[in-house]
Amino acid sequence: MENIEVVYRINVPESQISDFAESVMLEQSVETPLNVALRYPFVRERMLGHVLNITPEAEAGFRVTIALPVETAAVDPAQLLNVLYGNSSLHEEVVLLDFTLPPSVKAGFSGPRFGIDGIRRRTGVADRPLTCTALKPVGLTVEELADLCRRFAEGGIDMIKDDHYLGNHPFSPFEERVQACQQAVDEVADRTGHRAVYCPNLSGTPGQVFRQAAFAQDQGVGAVMAAPMLLGMPFFFDLVRSHLEIPVLAHPSFAGSERIREDTLQGKLFRLYGADAVIFANYGGRFSASKEVCAATAAALRADWPPYAPSLPVPAGGMSAARSRELVDFFGPDTMLLVGGSLLEAGPQLTARTRAFVDSVKEAAAPAPENT
Amino acid sequence: MENIEVVYRINVPESQISDFAESVMLEQSVETPLNVALRYPFVRERMLGHVLNITPEAEAGFRVTIALPVETAAVDPAQLLNVLYGNSSLHEEVVLLDFTLPPSVKAGFSGPRFGIDGIRRRTGVADRPLTCTALKPVGLTVEELADLCRRFAEGGIDMIKDDHYLGNHPFSPFEERVQACQQAVDEVADRTGHRAVYCPNLSGTPGQVFRQAAFAQDQGVGAVMAAPMLLGMPFFFDLVRSHLEIPVLAHPSFAGSERIREDTLQGKLFRLYGADAVIFANYGGRFSASKEVCAATAAALRADWPPYAPSLPVPAGGMSAARSRELVDFFGPDTMLLVGGSLLEAGPQLTARTRAFVDSVKEAAAPAPENT
Repeated sequence: MENIEVVYRINVPESQISDFAESVMLEQSVETPLNVALRYPFVRERMLGHVLNITPEAEAGFRVTIALPVETAAVDPAQLLNVLYGNSSLHEEVVLLDFTLPPSVKAGFSGPRFGIDGIRRRTGVADRPLTCTALKPVGLTVEELADLCRRFAEGGIDMIKDDHYLGNHPFSPFEERVQACQQAVDEVADRTGHRAVYCPNLSGTPGQVFRQAAFAQDQGVGAVMAAPMLLGMPFFFDLVRSHLEIPVLAHPSFAGSERIREDTLQGKLFRLYGADAVIFANYGGRFSASKEVCAATAAALRADWPPYAPSLPVPAGGMSAARSRELVDFFGPDTMLLVGGSLLEAGPQLTARTRAFVDSVKEAAAPAPENT
Repeated sequence: MENIEVVYRINVPESQISDFAESVMLEQSVETPLNVALRYPFVRERMLGHVLNITPEAEAGFRVTIALPVETAAVDPAQLLNVLYGNSSLHEEVVLLDFTLPPSVKAGFSGPRFGIDGIRRRTGVADRPLTCTALKPVGLTVEELADLCRRFAEGGIDMIKDDHYLGNHPFSPFEERVQACQQAVDEVADRTGHRAVYCPNLSGTPGQVFRQAAFAQDQGVGAVMAAPMLLGMPFFFDLVRSHLEIPVLAHPSFAGSERIREDTLQGKLFRLYGADAVIFANYGGRFSASKEVCAATAAALRADWPPYAPSLPVPAGGMSAARSRELVDFFGPDTMLLVGGSLLEAGPQLTARTRAFVDSVKEAAAPAPENT
């Protein structure tokens, strides 16, 4: 019999931890009093979880590992979340730290379809960190966005993503925007030989998003962006599996406040549900992420986890080209650095500053000259 | 020009609050440095938010009210969440407390299609609190679930919902389960005159859930259940608006850990996105919810908020019939009490215990006999 192993941090006094762990196990498997579950042989043998392990955590509380049967989780991509952290999310004492999946659950998930290698093939960047920027602020017209796109592409950037606030606005409708921005990168590619990947943001209901995905692919875009927690994880899963033949970049909007350890949500779960690249709030920028959390998220995205391809980490949030060397040293080559506002501040010098950013990443990634 | 007003609690020292509030405003509107936003007249005038108010909070931190332009939020049901709490969810210092919406945003949301009155019409319960129970544990066969359903219906319960762990399992496939359970309540209605509403759980990808909704309605079920945060709010919105002609009960799975005040997420947002009734963790049960939080959630669901119909509060989570009077006194008549495991513990006496639960609610709601 196969189990999912789920690791929670449970913050209760030692006198309560044993009962609390047992109650979380019941909550996350049969959700009835034990005597009700025990009445049915199939439920007793196949649906009931068990507490595997309780150890004190360094900071506070306890690290509790619970084995949960696969039967519920394996059914659909909503049920896996339900089993990992459905009702237990309602306990403020409980944080989801980690999980391991047996083959029967993994069989339901394909993970990234492109991953790091696929994104490298699409951008033609074989061996250095990639560079990315964002079209913003929301409020620009289609022409203004396409002009930004053109200038970023002329600066040699690898990927140009929409801001996550770009929806289907009256002042820059989705279809017109996508068409104009893709034409801009195509035109630069024809003229200069450098083909930037334009990555529009998909947003809305399933019907709206699936239509956006079809339109964008018809226009020849190289990737799309979506926010898994904003759309919902089962919706994101379906988008990736049934509606996309190009890579997808996951945006962290609405994901930050879950009591799920960052590397587990934005690293492991986003990757499992199909993100080829994952944007996350970097240390030292606008957000208060720590180096440790960022390193753990990057590690979860790239970890050896067969059969899943590794996802590309995309640290972001108030970065600047001045930090390229530091960030390349910290995150290594299989990374895409996302710098948005700090390039846009260059105004008329946007193309030059973009080129300086790309060059700084190339330099940072080049092997140091030998000391002869 | 219309604005959304969003209220956050921001937990930073007084020396930082002014700058931090300004940075949250930028993050939630233009997401660029201010000098970039100011360059474009349309962005400056129509997309930029402003900080309205900063006051110290009693416990800690500050209550900050920010006006955000409607332009981004009004576009689709994902963008509203993006504007309310997208990137700001990544700041652990920031809690979403409340929001108010102008007419142009409200125009995009219908709220509950049935609400309290609609559920009363469907159950034929005009003036007392309603009663609800759950089919569980997961692992039962279709026959076992249908048998439970029949016995609950014979006990006079108003609504019988699937456990949220019931998906499309090999051992109780969705279609067979829904057919058998609906037949069970139909058969009891024909025989006894009491028609319980059977409410199956919808779970999976958009494609799966929309097919489940169509099948369940073809079978004549009276309501369905779905977990908005598990599926994703824009997916839930679309389910309600485009795929359902019967009431929908919202389940709180995966909703508990957001840094959004409970009455704002499970009360206001679930209602805005279309929940006719909302299950929430009650005080004094398996979860550590406080009386204040429960009262606030019920109040948000029933508050006067034109044009939205009020939603039915459904306190749940380790309740028992012994608490009917207390809970009816606390929540008042426009409430549905959900008791699951404690009825199931009755085993062969399930019908009798269900009847006792329903009777206890009727008694608790009856006017006290006059003292003559």
